[in-house]
Amino acid sequence: MKIVLQILSLQRHRLSGQIEAFANYTGFMWEIAAEYQAKIVFAEHRYYGESKPFGNKSLEKEYIGYLTSAQALADYADLINYLQKDEIKPRYPVIAFGGSYGGMLAAYIRIKYPHLVAGAIAASAPIHMFPGMTKCDLFNRIVTASFKRNFYCSENIQKSWHLIRSYSSSVNGSEYLHKTLNLCGASNATDINSLIEYLESAYVTLAMVNYPFASSFLTPLPAQPVAVVCQYLNQNLANESLLEGIAKAIDVYANYGKKTKQCVDYKEGDNYQNLDAGGWDFQACTEMVMPVCSTGQNDMFEASPWNFTKYSEDCYKKYNVYPRENMARLEYGGDLLQAASNIVFSYGLLDPWTAGGFISSVSDSVDVILIADAAHHLDLMPSSPDDQSPVKDAREKHKQHISKWIDSFRARNKHVVTYL
Amino acid sequence: MKIVLQILSLQRHRLSGQIEAFANYTGFMWEIAAEYQAKIVFAEHRYYGESKPFGNKSLEKEYIGYLTSAQALADYADLINYLQKDEIKPRYPVIAFGGSYGGMLAAYIRIKYPHLVAGAIAASAPIHMFPGMTKCDLFNRIVTASFKRNFYCSENIQKSWHLIRSYSSSVNGSEYLHKTLNLCGASNATDINSLIEYLESAYVTLAMVNYPFASSFLTPLPAQPVAVVCQYLNQNLANESLLEGIAKAIDVYANYGKKTKQCVDYKEGDNYQNLDAGGWDFQACTEMVMPVCSTGQNDMFEASPWNFTKYSEDCYKKYNVYPRENMARLEYGGDLLQAASNIVFSYGLLDPWTAGGFISSVSDSVDVILIADAAHHLDLMPSSPDDQSPVKDAREKHKQHISKWIDSFRARNKHVVTYL
Repeated sequence: MKIVLQILSLQRHRLSGQIEAFANYTGFMWEIAAEYQAKIVFAEHRYYGESKPFGNKSLEKEYIGYLTSAQALADYADLINYLQKDEIKPRYPVIAFGGSYGGMLAAYIRIKYPHLVAGAIAASAPIHMFPGMTKCDLFNRIVTASFKRNFYCSENIQKSWHLIRSYSSSVNGSEYLHKTLNLCGASNATDINSLIEYLESAYVTLAMVNYPFASSFLTPLPAQPVAVVCQYLNQNLANESLLEGIAKAIDVYANYGKKTKQCVDYKEGDNYQNLDAGGWDFQACTEMVMPVCSTGQNDMFEASPWNFTKYSEDCYKKYNVYPRENMARLEYGGDLLQAASNIVFSYGLLDPWTAGGFISSVSDSVDVILIADAAHHLDLMPSSPDDQSPVKDAREKHKQHISKWIDSFRARNKHVVTYL
Repeated sequence: MKIVLQILSLQRHRLSGQIEAFANYTGFMWEIAAEYQAKIVFAEHRYYGESKPFGNKSLEKEYIGYLTSAQALADYADLINYLQKDEIKPRYPVIAFGGSYGGMLAAYIRIKYPHLVAGAIAASAPIHMFPGMTKCDLFNRIVTASFKRNFYCSENIQKSWHLIRSYSSSVNGSEYLHKTLNLCGASNATDINSLIEYLESAYVTLAMVNYPFASSFLTPLPAQPVAVVCQYLNQNLANESLLEGIAKAIDVYANYGKKTKQCVDYKEGDNYQNLDAGGWDFQACTEMVMPVCSTGQNDMFEASPWNFTKYSEDCYKKYNVYPRENMARLEYGGDLLQAASNIVFSYGLLDPWTAGGFISSVSDSVDVILIADAAHHLDLMPSSPDDQSPVKDAREKHKQHISKWIDSFRARNKHVVTYL
């Protein structure tokens, strides 16, 4: 039996795609492989990691056009066929695994190529996050909810934006900010919008990887990272004490696990050392339009409405393309899954991407599993002594489904027509 | 409710694609539309009929590359979405109808875009005719079987090839052939291979459209055309009497319904006046590889083995492309339909394309209907007083399926998730 994995992880408006990182962090597959006598294949998505069809030029305007999810699925189909030795009736059941965008692909390959894939475990796959499907502020409300679990934490963060902006508007304040937050670069050249974006993105990441164990998946972080950073923000803070709290919080994000403390490189954005992300920006500018916004009311962020017109214009500037707003829905159907089968969609209730997981239509053989106390595709991660029962139960359920799919694959090829 | 039709008809290595002809000959849809309060849409496949994306140049090497079945399906998806007014939960059930290649497309759009199409009537769709799936001589054996029903008919045709070749090898014989068969062109320029090909193709067409009523679908022909031509070949004939029989038979094919008798334009090939076929040749050279051969033993044709190497080289000469032998299987799965639903595959037992219809795996909601005494997608044709009960029953069954699919479409959108 073969198990084919395609796992890729979405970060907010950014995809992490180098396959080796996923091979390292997808412990669930490694742990169950022997039991199923399975071959494990990690297949890298075209245009990510080392899979660059035009080398270093691949992400340039002129060369990036072959980067689509449909083409990636066709690649996987080709690979699976190759692994099955080009046989007309494949001998081995193939199970697709994926998390985040990879979870979408796992589901989509079962939907589009069910003759090649017997079933799919789609973890934290935001298949219902395209325009018109979910509320654009839901993502950031889920982020906020994790911080709200810790007294004052989300309130302090919510208050910090105005404070940071007001400090940055004076020379002295700017210098204080620069020093307190340990920012890289010259203090008089602080780019306030980049700083705000960096901090927002840090909080989102902390929520996404709010695992019960220390992990270096997206960036090195301690166990329960939201609680860890919130310990510096668990009182009603203001002014300098608030900024100091933010500074300590962000130091965890930027420096955890590092031998020597480094300045906070907020202009670099979120280029996690493990992963590379360039291609997703193009996909988000063509087919994968996922509206995200914040209101500043129901979430702890500055208000930032979803503006498709501006979004489109930015895409045109970068890639000479306009996004097709309904492309992904047309191609994959959102949550209209009545005809689908042999897919498990799992979502962690701590994971902001669960905003794209409100699936109203499930069929006899499409299951949705909601995992309490779980962040972004925790169920695919290596098991840990710190795991709680919800994620353990989810993994048990995954195994039951996989066994059932394999059994029905084996049963199905018994009918033969003979013509003479 | 909307009914979307995509119907195209395959001829042996040739596809007929002008949509108006299909609109005229797909009586079944017109006859049932009112009962379902249905809108009927005939959607022309890109690169066929008037749907030429680059005008007159479309079929040239440089412009033909966008002609694929996957692109055609995406076009239909786009059209359906447009007809549904771009709504996230489509309001109207869409039923796809198609015959022959159109039947394949009808099935494939349900398989690939089940969120857009509630069900598909796929008539005479050779989805199981790709390399390794069926025997390459089965097509011509089914053609032969229709002629065998008439005493001596297939035997006479089988004997005729050698006779025609031997006549053509002398000046006198050639002149006799030319005059007797009423061939166009100069008698001393008879191209024997083109003539043989024309005759073979004529017999194949006669078998394909061996309807119980007169029809001009592919070319004007009387009711029961195989029986009509076989009346001139129903004794054990030889030499000149055999050639005269062939001549009378072919005159039916070439001149039925014409006011003034015309010479047999055998070099023109099968450019049916109604239909245009250029694009199919390219599709057969890329993705739609359907091996057809004859043995001269089990069929009434000259032996002609399937030679993929030569086939590929011919494609390269014409289009600068080599066919991908397993492309269609990879993309559509042949008869591995266990995950498919809401499709009826109907096949007529007189139809040579039924060679691609031996489907061994059907699911709970994929039905195969075999129609005795029916030629190429007869069930989609207008009803006729000459119809026998098998085709009438098939149409009744189609209606039952359509009603069921519509009901389940209407039932399915009742579940709603509300998030606050």
